[in-house]
Amino acid sequence: MKKEERNVYIDNIDVGKAKELYFKKIYRNIDWEEVDTVDALGRITYEAVYAKKSSPHYNAAAMDGILVKSKDMVGVTESTPKILEEGKDYKYINTGNPIEPPFDAVIMIEEVINLDDGKIKIIKSAYPWQHIRPIGEDIVATEMIIPSKHKIRPIDLGALVCGGIEKVRVYKKPNIGIVPTGSEIVEDINTVDVGKISDSNSLVFEGLIKEYGGVPKRYRPVKDDYDILKREILKCSEENDIILINAGSSAGTKDFTVKIIKEIGEVVVHGIALKPGKPTILGIINNKPIIGIPGYPVSSYLVFETFVKPIIYKYTGQEEEKEEIEQAIISKRIVSSFKNKELVRVNLGVVKDRLIATPLTGGAGVTMSLVKADGIVTIPRNTEGVEGGETVDVKLLKPISKIKDTLVSIGSHDLIMDVISDMTKLSSGHVGSMGGILAMKRGECHIAPIHLLDIETGEYNISYVKKYFPNEKMAIIKGVKRIQGFIVNKGNPHNIKDFNDLIKDNITFINRQKGSGTRILLDYNLKKLNINPDRIKGYDREMNTHMAVSMAVKTGGADAALGVLSSAKALDLDFVEVTYEEYDFLTSFEYLHDKKIMNFIDVIKSQEFKSKIKELGGYEISNIGEVISL
Amino acid sequence: MKKEERNVYIDNIDVGKAKELYFKKIYRNIDWEEVDTVDALGRITYEAVYAKKSSPHYNAAAMDGILVKSKDMVGVTESTPKILEEGKDYKYINTGNPIEPPFDAVIMIEEVINLDDGKIKIIKSAYPWQHIRPIGEDIVATEMIIPSKHKIRPIDLGALVCGGIEKVRVYKKPNIGIVPTGSEIVEDINTVDVGKISDSNSLVFEGLIKEYGGVPKRYRPVKDDYDILKREILKCSEENDIILINAGSSAGTKDFTVKIIKEIGEVVVHGIALKPGKPTILGIINNKPIIGIPGYPVSSYLVFETFVKPIIYKYTGQEEEKEEIEQAIISKRIVSSFKNKELVRVNLGVVKDRLIATPLTGGAGVTMSLVKADGIVTIPRNTEGVEGGETVDVKLLKPISKIKDTLVSIGSHDLIMDVISDMTKLSSGHVGSMGGILAMKRGECHIAPIHLLDIETGEYNISYVKKYFPNEKMAIIKGVKRIQGFIVNKGNPHNIKDFNDLIKDNITFINRQKGSGTRILLDYNLKKLNINPDRIKGYDREMNTHMAVSMAVKTGGADAALGVLSSAKALDLDFVEVTYEEYDFLTSFEYLHDKKIMNFIDVIKSQEFKSKIKELGGYEISNIGEVISL
Repeated sequence: MKKEERNVYIDNIDVGKAKELYFKKIYRNIDWEEVDTVDALGRITYEAVYAKKSSPHYNAAAMDGILVKSKDMVGVTESTPKILEEGKDYKYINTGNPIEPPFDAVIMIEEVINLDDGKIKIIKSAYPWQHIRPIGEDIVATEMIIPSKHKIRPIDLGALVCGGIEKVRVYKKPNIGIVPTGSEIVEDINTVDVGKISDSNSLVFEGLIKEYGGVPKRYRPVKDDYDILKREILKCSEENDIILINAGSSAGTKDFTVKIIKEIGEVVVHGIALKPGKPTILGIINNKPIIGIPGYPVSSYLVFETFVKPIIYKYTGQEEEKEEIEQAIISKRIVSSFKNKELVRVNLGVVKDRLIATPLTGGAGVTMSLVKADGIVTIPRNTEGVEGGETVDVKLLKPISKIKDTLVSIGSHDLIMDVISDMTKLSSGHVGSMGGILAMKRGECHIAPIHLLDIETGEYNISYVKKYFPNEKMAIIKGVKRIQGFIVNKGNPHNIKDFNDLIKDNITFINRQKGSGTRILLDYNLKKLNINPDRIKGYDREMNTHMAVSMAVKTGGADAALGVLSSAKALDLDFVEVTYEEYDFLTSFEYLHDKKIMNFIDVIKSQEFKSKIKELGGYEISNIGEVISL
Repeated sequence: MKKEERNVYIDNIDVGKAKELYFKKIYRNIDWEEVDTVDALGRITYEAVYAKKSSPHYNAAAMDGILVKSKDMVGVTESTPKILEEGKDYKYINTGNPIEPPFDAVIMIEEVINLDDGKIKIIKSAYPWQHIRPIGEDIVATEMIIPSKHKIRPIDLGALVCGGIEKVRVYKKPNIGIVPTGSEIVEDINTVDVGKISDSNSLVFEGLIKEYGGVPKRYRPVKDDYDILKREILKCSEENDIILINAGSSAGTKDFTVKIIKEIGEVVVHGIALKPGKPTILGIINNKPIIGIPGYPVSSYLVFETFVKPIIYKYTGQEEEKEEIEQAIISKRIVSSFKNKELVRVNLGVVKDRLIATPLTGGAGVTMSLVKADGIVTIPRNTEGVEGGETVDVKLLKPISKIKDTLVSIGSHDLIMDVISDMTKLSSGHVGSMGGILAMKRGECHIAPIHLLDIETGEYNISYVKKYFPNEKMAIIKGVKRIQGFIVNKGNPHNIKDFNDLIKDNITFINRQKGSGTRILLDYNLKKLNINPDRIKGYDREMNTHMAVSMAVKTGGADAALGVLSSAKALDLDFVEVTYEEYDFLTSFEYLHDKKIMNFIDVIKSQEFKSKIKELGGYEISNIGEVISL
């Protein structure tokens, strides 16, 4: 297929301008409906609701007690008590019962002294309307109960009912059709073959639409066929108020969406100066908004939030919540293209009273960067990004109080960090051991998990800390000894048992980058065994993560790698144990009295944690939680 | 019925202590269930979810373009381009398609120069794995996707599906039965006779239970009969995990709830040192919590929030949100009983950079005080309340940003305040004209609606402002001229036409309190007409609101009152027009440039507002929005 047949030319319109252009064309179909008050929870009022009845709608007793005539009670005191006769002078009354003339006051039951024959003694006067709820005390007919554009809360339901409101006029929920496209997309999440992707975006859209007050309808994935897709879009636009087409919005061979919208409707905008999210289409079909949303999960989520959410809010009469913005110090340089507004997902933590934003790694395909994000930093257009250490505005995705309570860990990754973060509030960034040491040095984390072998002494971690923090009082919290080993194909076809096997002729190795703990471990062992690295085929091919080397083994690029058990397990590979290494937590001495660190130590010393670690396998935890001051 | 047969003796236990006592007895039935991932939105994870599959689960193209062998592309530049042949050297590939060996790099379609015969030219090198999403780039199998006790968000659904999770273990939603009791309670909200109350509390509970993650079941109201109620409670406790009995928890004649719980279960606590909410019952039946909730709407809501919400949260694995607490200056004295913790509903507003909390009037029966509340002030036990001007902690019910945007009005009430508050953010407190002037003097409001007649000059408002603000620069924003008139029974049976009719022998009048605008108006007119007030029967009987005097007319205590049209309408009474009065808005001169005031003036000058006022009837608005500086 030729270049001409692809949609390579798309615009680069500013987000604000695109919204303005588009939104003024589409806001016309705002609609209301009448619902029973009992079904109105969470709906948005289309108009103010004024009470039809007063509440109480009759004069009612406000207390349990007796009903009397106040004029009988004038001047009554302890020394001049009054004896009353039932039926004639008083009647028993319960809270809520109506006041019957000529009675006009209630005396609390606690103040009634019982005598014989239905007679009682009272030793206190009673004023007119005492303990009586007059008509309209709560709600006066004609009074406004709730204003328009108000989301009906449980307590409002009570007031509406008391005000005699049987039905409420509310904004109609827009029906929103979701059409996933692409021959690679499958609906079933269980049977996903190679080359197929499960339709996770539709599920995310469905959830967001529900939360924002629309009625979602998911359509089955449509394969890459112009006519089929056109038919499906037409059908969807007949059945819905808003149409979302997922993927097919960029410049791929089979990206028909924009052509179809052009044919049967209008493309208002194609291409936004937003990253991720550039190939968005904002169109109109049958006077209804149709939005072409890019396929990558992060793009699709952010484009939904940027364009679809405001449309749903407008259709449902909701005001957008004010964004919670805080100033944070960005821990890493972010390079941004001059051309686009860029949305960067970040982890947040408060370290030494500074709010630190650490960009989450991963492109538009990394859903987990959204799952883990505490905030979003916007890099505006016409800037080249921000330098590490600069102050940026960050939109919070969690309450600041939760962020303040979170222990920030930056350093080497191990599966146990997941287990810990399930047991306490932990944000865990993974940049390797040396990356952790540097983050600690810059004051960006509370703890740094490290596993750095001193090849002179064979000792772990301590010499590195002394070297990098010569003038600071630091501490090491002992973690786990974890098994490192050879990651090999299922069944270990080359029978790799130890480092000496790596120099065999038929073995291709794949290495980790210099400075990583695992690389240091390899070099230390090779030196100890007097193995010349040059004799290992693939020694010079470096990859940055345990997973990356495991994958090279899995996909046939290499026969062996050195790494941790979990990455072998993740790809269903075999694992040959080689040696234990010490995976500890570096912290600053002054943090040892921080509640978050104390809690962290409690967690890793707990029986619950230890038994979870035992289940994982591959760890030795005899001195976990011990503190070494340095 | 005798005193002995009532539940007059109840405890007065501290809220915290009651919770401790009770909660440790009831937390045992926490349960989980497995739901399909597609149905898991909003559910709370019972355990951490670890990925079963990696995502992507194969190496996939990250761009639309062509698939090449990176080794072919070494050294390619603009001056040393490379010609590639389709099928042999390259293949077209779309985003998401699998990488097939020996190909190992993707070149973006934008960088492909088309030649003839399926040949293309490339002028840039390609590195291995360029534009390829490796297995596990997003999610690595075994990695934690979301922790336990996590409320599943839309984005989590996407990650779960990508991680191969078909089913999620979540906290089971507790079934919660709501049993309304009391012969006066009716389910139907349409046919509510005198002495009957519609079952609004159950509806509020139902809404709260849904919002907090339980499954509510409303039972029909049960009349005051020991055996019927007992049968219903037993049935409800078999069908539910938590049982709520509404009302019947205090000391009324027919309050059987506590006796029944004692008979068939255990009463742990009866009587809490909480106001409102004192007669709460915390009990256990069939090992299940049963809570007896007082009947007044405000009590029932606050008791639900205090005791039932934490139980639902515990059952569903949710952590209670951190309360948003701000310091505010209380505008009025609050008297509190030494014995009880007291929860006071307040309006909040920021005036001159101070957060002002104004207590909402009304007892436990006033639902509207909750509907209108911006916050709750807690007065602890063992204090006698707080003085006006003191600083108090207030729990916010709205975001502080919204409170900052709200125009605070304190003064005389008129229906037009409701109309305005539907068109702009307005909090409106009603304490009469003089109350408004004093609130303005204390810096507690931005505007004060007043209608004060100078009986010397016949002029409205201005002389009062000059008198009370001799040294301050103030302004009056002209409001409406509103009709005042006689409120009389339907059909005006005594044919009252003017002030002279008030002295007729068969007429009983009901008056407003001294200092109220309406009283001043009456006295001014009587003086002008040389009518001696002593000749008017009932002149000395004073009531504090328009509604109160209207009600006296309605219920036969009086034949006529002076007041506004709306209060006559509210009670379906007749109204005889007498004279117009000027209802204006006092503000400080310096506020005139405040955005909130400018917006307020825009609103009252708008055509939309004017046409709404016309619909209400009884107003003259020729100079509305004009500003007079004083």
